[in-house]
Amino acid sequence: MTEARTGTNTGPNAEATRKNVLIVSAHPDPRSLTASLTSFAEEELKAAGHRVRVSDLYAMKWRSGLDADDFPELGGDRLLVQDVQGRATREGSLAADIAAEQEKVRWADAVILQYPLWWFSVPAVMKGWIDRVFTFGWAYGAEHPPPYSEGALAGRRALVSVTVGAREGAFSDRGIHGRLSDVLYPVQHGLFWFSGMAPLEPFALFDANEMSDEEGEQAKRAYAERLKGLFTDAPVPFRRLDEDYDHDMRLLPGREAPGASGTDLHLR
Amino acid sequence: MTEARTGTNTGPNAEATRKNVLIVSAHPDPRSLTASLTSFAEEELKAAGHRVRVSDLYAMKWRSGLDADDFPELGGDRLLVQDVQGRATREGSLAADIAAEQEKVRWADAVILQYPLWWFSVPAVMKGWIDRVFTFGWAYGAEHPPPYSEGALAGRRALVSVTVGAREGAFSDRGIHGRLSDVLYPVQHGLFWFSGMAPLEPFALFDANEMSDEEGEQAKRAYAERLKGLFTDAPVPFRRLDEDYDHDMRLLPGREAPGASGTDLHLR
Repeated sequence: MTEARTGTNTGPNAEATRKNVLIVSAHPDPRSLTASLTSFAEEELKAAGHRVRVSDLYAMKWRSGLDADDFPELGGDRLLVQDVQGRATREGSLAADIAAEQEKVRWADAVILQYPLWWFSVPAVMKGWIDRVFTFGWAYGAEHPPPYSEGALAGRRALVSVTVGAREGAFSDRGIHGRLSDVLYPVQHGLFWFSGMAPLEPFALFDANEMSDEEGEQAKRAYAERLKGLFTDAPVPFRRLDEDYDHDMRLLPGREAPGASGTDLHLR
Repeated sequence: MTEARTGTNTGPNAEATRKNVLIVSAHPDPRSLTASLTSFAEEELKAAGHRVRVSDLYAMKWRSGLDADDFPELGGDRLLVQDVQGRATREGSLAADIAAEQEKVRWADAVILQYPLWWFSVPAVMKGWIDRVFTFGWAYGAEHPPPYSEGALAGRRALVSVTVGAREGAFSDRGIHGRLSDVLYPVQHGLFWFSGMAPLEPFALFDANEMSDEEGEQAKRAYAERLKGLFTDAPVPFRRLDEDYDHDMRLLPGREAPGASGTDLHLR
């Protein structure tokens, strides 16, 4: 969690291209592929002159369960999540661990989520980071612009870096597990884009349980390429709420490509 | 968590129609809509003569984070999740809280997940229940038949009962959040169907943050109807791996309805 103080990028334009990156990492074993990809990204990004902070959720013993302890001033009030998060956010009375993570996300120009795909979703501890940190009144709602447009966290980029036990075919266009873009839609569109962050195409490593050393090195080279494009690659072209949807948040007639359906409707 | 010892269904065929239902519930406040729907379902199902057990995850202080404590005999071995879960499952050395939940799922003829939709997914504590309980070697893999066919938990029904803050339109066919069936695909197809359980159409209550007493009563009447069909309603017609997919788990050519794409491909 130390920040880079020096980097290779020390020319006259260094400050302009020096960015802040938060990596959120979720695996219980520090010897895991997840942990090694997190360290690798941290080193690569620092070498490129960026500042990097890491939230290693297991190492931090991150508390997953959103509950009354998140809101020390709640008293005996009913825990209506949106109301209670909104009030505590406004009054600055969120639990200290939540406030610290919000500060990191605010600080970041890009957020990377590094995790193994467990049951077609993020590990529980990362879901707990999302549930507790992305509060109403902070990530969306209240005084903020509408979601999916100029959301509260606009100006930031977001990258899912995920390791997958299954083979790539099973997540392809006709794959039984669903297209990776559909499986990740709740995170890519529902978390990142909803709150204003620009999601990049995910970086996914398949067959991750059976990687040889050689394949591991290959994977890191591929990841290094993606990290180089973190601030320049075109984000996934999701549609803006204020341009393409009606008052009920339904896509306006005729906007889609002929025959498009499902999540494809929401791509420009 | 007491089981029904008597019910209204006491005729000669009572045993044949008496089923076991596990409700898994996830909300931190016992005064929540989630808690009230859980109690309601428990009463309705018991009144119909079924046996009901409830796993109230917050009340149980369910531990969300899959880690080395799940595997008391792991020693210092690397935590390769699939390997380690498989070994501990085979040797009967999973942590006691996991074994207890596995016993409940095994006992159940139907499993109901009752939760609020947080960030387009289950609350972290419920994800933790899924991550830790549905182990390799128990929910899938090893000596079991392939997934999506006669999975390890075949013969059971599964129902998502979810409360949603947003309006229904935003989850409709053209809704910006994605169709509810797409958003729930990781649970409906990825958890239930993958492990052999037959998922029913979800029961969803929208606008759940602003429900009047009258709307609340209406919602319960609608839920009661769905509970009556728990063992008779037709499940979602997902495709079987052994019938419709190739060796790479890709849908065989020409199986789909003309123009179908995305998750629709995986419906018969």
